[in-house]
Amino acid sequence: MIFCQEEKMKKETLTTVFEAVRKTGPLVHCITNYVTVNDVANMVLACGASPIMADDKAEAAGITAICSATYINIGTLNARTVDSMVLAGKKAEELHHPVVLDPVGAGASPFRTDTVRRLMDSIHFTVIKGNMSEIKTIAQGKGTTRGVDAAAADTVTEADLDAAAGFVRSLAVRTGSVIAVTGALDIICGGGTAYICRNGHPMLKSITGSGCMLGAVVAAFCGANPENPVEAAAAAVSAMGLCGERAYRKTADAGAGTGSFRSYLLDAMSMLTPQSFAEGCKIEER
Amino acid sequence: MIFCQEEKMKKETLTTVFEAVRKTGPLVHCITNYVTVNDVANMVLACGASPIMADDKAEAAGITAICSATYINIGTLNARTVDSMVLAGKKAEELHHPVVLDPVGAGASPFRTDTVRRLMDSIHFTVIKGNMSEIKTIAQGKGTTRGVDAAAADTVTEADLDAAAGFVRSLAVRTGSVIAVTGALDIICGGGTAYICRNGHPMLKSITGSGCMLGAVVAAFCGANPENPVEAAAAAVSAMGLCGERAYRKTADAGAGTGSFRSYLLDAMSMLTPQSFAEGCKIEER
Amino acid sequence: MIFCQEEKMKKETLTTVFEAVRKTGPLVHCITNYVTVNDVANMVLACGASPIMADDKAEAAGITAICSATYINIGTLNARTVDSMVLAGKKAEELHHPVVLDPVGAGASPFRTDTVRRLMDSIHFTVIKGNMSEIKTIAQGKGTTRGVDAAAADTVTEADLDAAAGFVRSLAVRTGSVIAVTGALDIICGGGTAYICRNGHPMLKSITGSGCMLGAVVAAFCGANPENPVEAAAAAVSAMGLCGERAYRKTADAGAGTGSFRSYLLDAMSMLTPQSFAEGCKIEER
Repeated sequence: MIFCQEEKMKKETLTTVFEAVRKTGPLVHCITNYVTVNDVANMVLACGASPIMADDKAEAAGITAICSATYINIGTLNARTVDSMVLAGKKAEELHHPVVLDPVGAGASPFRTDTVRRLMDSIHFTVIKGNMSEIKTIAQGKGTTRGVDAAAADTVTEADLDAAAGFVRSLAVRTGSVIAVTGALDIICGGGTAYICRNGHPMLKSITGSGCMLGAVVAAFCGANPENPVEAAAAAVSAMGLCGERAYRKTADAGAGTGSFRSYLLDAMSMLTPQSFAEGCKIEER
Repeated sequence: MIFCQEEKMKKETLTTVFEAVRKTGPLVHCITNYVTVNDVANMVLACGASPIMADDKAEAAGITAICSATYINIGTLNARTVDSMVLAGKKAEELHHPVVLDPVGAGASPFRTDTVRRLMDSIHFTVIKGNMSEIKTIAQGKGTTRGVDAAAADTVTEADLDAAAGFVRSLAVRTGSVIAVTGALDIICGGGTAYICRNGHPMLKSITGSGCMLGAVVAAFCGANPENPVEAAAAAVSAMGLCGERAYRKTADAGAGTGSFRSYLLDAMSMLTPQSFAEGCKIEER
Repeated sequence: MIFCQEEKMKKETLTTVFEAVRKTGPLVHCITNYVTVNDVANMVLACGASPIMADDKAEAAGITAICSATYINIGTLNARTVDSMVLAGKKAEELHHPVVLDPVGAGASPFRTDTVRRLMDSIHFTVIKGNMSEIKTIAQGKGTTRGVDAAAADTVTEADLDAAAGFVRSLAVRTGSVIAVTGALDIICGGGTAYICRNGHPMLKSITGSGCMLGAVVAAFCGANPENPVEAAAAAVSAMGLCGERAYRKTADAGAGTGSFRSYLLDAMSMLTPQSFAEGCKIEER
């Protein structure tokens, strides 16, 4: 294969990006929903970073200033915290810190769709991470999200992967952000590069918060690799998917269910080594 | 036994009600407390439904409109979310969607007791689920709840089961709601029917949120069975109790404690099959 | 050893303090952050007490009045809940109930530092529990906290233990509160007594909430032992540290990670007996 050498270099880059999180332990400011916030904090710790949550206007910008990255998740929006999100995001942008948007449920209500627009008008996001329904809502200004899950019609398959990647790539160009679309196949585009990730397991959808945890891990990876947001997002997506695979295997071996899977997912991230990441990472450039 | 045939038909009905949740995967809007909200979301997923949480006035009614059922839990009340509860509940009623009330800690403070009255004045609830102290507070307009647990004097035993069932039955008639009272013995009354459930395990009281999880599961079961709210509530109560029994056995076998029990409880619900539900369900009509 | 008899009596006292929690099952009012609130509630249950969370001004004081102890944690501060903290704390003081402050992240933002000052101006706390960075911020009125973790420069070692204990002792005298400083070595001072605790394991820092859980357990122990707040705080610190040691061993034996460790920590507390506490407790008076 003519691209073998290049593939190997790419994997080394992603592994270096992965290792940087554990080496630098970035502090990540998370303004996120109260449903999955505990799992988000524990997953940030498990990947080698440190979380801090501060959603009052009196300190949102100040806490962002002492952090390396900011994560904004609209899962349980309210008027009070939206103002804090804007303050934190603007401060992150001002300081050239990476800031990641997770537009949970964009399209499920006008309030969410409008809030995402307001956030994107106020802040230039380094990465926007969502399922295909949420990302289409962002691209089109309206949506068809079924609650907080992607609509069935928005599932990306191998057959329409090129078309989907083209759509994501063009949105990345238009917004100037890295766009990470998660699903059975994950697509990460930004700065002219497109990655497809084939890690993951369907059981990740059987618990709440796998998407939120990933969003915060993307922020952590960006915080440790501010010069490489595309590779940071791709490595984070792959790492979480790989942990889902490992947690599933452990769950199946134990004859256990979704409660144990959730613990094993955190276990997997806390025990993931650069070597096992490099071995399990299923990313290709496209 | 003369009622054998009837008993068998009843169990088949409850099992059909149980299966409907996994078949239809109803979306459940939960406005609930921030203490146990993560467990609530994971338990809704484990029983085959999907949760969404939206407690801002700007979207509470709109999110209810795209859901099949609404769950309202006053565990951590505040002025902001009470308004959202009313908006969501009224919308559910308008759309003839089931709406379930969990009056956590009613009787523990005038604020909680008054809020329950306000909610019941504004909304006709399909099901009201609580412990005996909370339900007595609702019936009497005042209460003796010790924090969020039932008072010892309110424990239902076999000796006073008939009297307790009579009380619950009359409250169901008066309110026009299904009333589900949980405890060592569970009583579910509505539409002229009364069920006693003998599933469950004391270890369910050793973790926070088993009651909240059950309330949301009742809403999920009602969402999948809107024509049968009494059977939906009874099947949900039995299923959660059965999962408590199984989680306890797994915990005892492992020599583990309450942290593992919590995971095993979710495991049990995610792995419960119609067949094992039918085998383990301990419900009688009275 | 000349102090053998005294050491033995001290251990008996601490064990009696530990047992009192399981015997009396105190109700503990927790106004705490939404990141770790579920773990806090489950840990309060695991140690033998009962939690209730009520952060609205309309009921904060009333709920404190029906409880045996109040726990105030500023992990996710906002203007609304600070008022409730003041109301609850004042009521606890009025009723001579123990009230415990956990100044999470004091020093990380002026908002947090100012709120701690406001709380301490309004309420006389029975116990103040924090890491060395947070406690130094309280002592000096300004701080150097790195997010919610202690700064590396604030680590207490055997070499500077006497100096650190002297500092803590003088703050205890100045504030009239028991001061509990957690870290690799824990220092608990109050009423002229100073304890050093050597229980604990570094893995406690790999999950979120171990500090919050401890704070609430301190409140539970004080609620069951209102006449002995220094011994209550010391026994709580030792018990949590011991559970960390046991959870670590179980995690290591299972080849597991931080998700399982979190469950095992709750397991350990729920299964800790007076005898195993007495055997594992590593506290000395200094």
